[in-house]
Amino acid sequence: MSIQAIIFDAYGTLFDVYSIGALAERLFPGKGAAVAELWRDKQIEYTRLRTLSNTYKPFWEVTQDALVFCCRKLGLPLTLDAQTQLMGQYAKLQAFPENLGVLQSLKSEGLKLAILSNGNPEMLDAVVRAAGMDGLFTQVLSVHSVQKFKTAPEAYQLGPDMLGVAARDTLFVSSNGWDICGAAWFGFRTFWVNRSAAPLEELGVTPNGEGRTLDDVRRHVAQQA
Amino acid sequence: MSIQAIIFDAYGTLFDVYSIGALAERLFPGKGAAVAELWRDKQIEYTRLRTLSNTYKPFWEVTQDALVFCCRKLGLPLTLDAQTQLMGQYAKLQAFPENLGVLQSLKSEGLKLAILSNGNPEMLDAVVRAAGMDGLFTQVLSVHSVQKFKTAPEAYQLGPDMLGVAARDTLFVSSNGWDICGAAWFGFRTFWVNRSAAPLEELGVTPNGEGRTLDDVRRHVAQQA
Repeated sequence: MSIQAIIFDAYGTLFDVYSIGALAERLFPGKGAAVAELWRDKQIEYTRLRTLSNTYKPFWEVTQDALVFCCRKLGLPLTLDAQTQLMGQYAKLQAFPENLGVLQSLKSEGLKLAILSNGNPEMLDAVVRAAGMDGLFTQVLSVHSVQKFKTAPEAYQLGPDMLGVAARDTLFVSSNGWDICGAAWFGFRTFWVNRSAAPLEELGVTPNGEGRTLDDVRRHVAQQA
Repeated sequence: MSIQAIIFDAYGTLFDVYSIGALAERLFPGKGAAVAELWRDKQIEYTRLRTLSNTYKPFWEVTQDALVFCCRKLGLPLTLDAQTQLMGQYAKLQAFPENLGVLQSLKSEGLKLAILSNGNPEMLDAVVRAAGMDGLFTQVLSVHSVQKFKTAPEAYQLGPDMLGVAARDTLFVSSNGWDICGAAWFGFRTFWVNRSAAPLEELGVTPNGEGRTLDDVRRHVAQQA
């Protein structure tokens, strides 16, 4: 059966997180890249630790905790103003330039489109609106409703449950290699938007498709039809 | 009630992983630190992803997968000989110099001592023997029997189940901040052997005690008696 629904990861896949590093560089000259990298690593680590131990709290708060740890570790003073600016950046990320066109085209072909993200609903609402993507998605799904972050199966299960399409007929699209592995283990078809030309994770998973931008998703879907 | 049992993490807590970085530096001059750090990060990441998705495989294999990824990512050629040497190092790690004396002293006070590690039984047997620690532990517990890595509660549950001592009467000792958080969330008393003077994780957990070496564990236990 051909693909009936496409579920997109949000941060890094649809929305460009580059501006976070750029702002960090303005706030902490010479340290922007280190802040952006450690902040992101800790953010993801904390989602996993909280999911493993059933100590969920919303992604916004986890992200803030990760920023506090990151600055403490790097010996950088985090003023309330800097914290507010950096966190606020998450609410107004830009979409990658090709995205709007690709999403409109896929939607016009009758595919159900959705987002499935670790972000809590308020964060996702804000970023979808800021990127001008209102109305393109059948569902904007947040793991908040199951209180477990990706890559917990309960998080991915939101896709079939809320879209009414089986995982095997759904293409899961992410720029994060680990997200692709979790989604494939869950049972989705997968497409890896490998924007940074990273090596494949050594987890025994090969995505069904791989490319560099969302344009490659359109090509992949056309080939499967 | 006072502490009746002490459970130790293995790698980095009892056994010094420094020699792994030193060997990596000999094999990949100028890159030893980067290899050791990325290898370790990936090893831990893979244990979490496999636990979240119920795709367990033994720590030895996960460690090997992480090494393969690490060298691919850093653009380093991993010969079979280098791989064998690096993996073999895990079987013959030295204990930190203070450990034998501290363990013997704690044991002589009638405390039950155990190891609880992500390592599979074969790895743990080899490293305990190499460090001359045979006979010091009531139990050497591997998560292999529950097929979930730390920080899953099922992994920590091995402690109370196999030692017959409640978590609240057990001190869990680790050099890994994340392990301390998982153990505290599970219900253990915790002591963080913060060998690298790392900042506390921003996860809402404060260990019951903290020090720099295993000698500090002895002092902490004496104070609780």
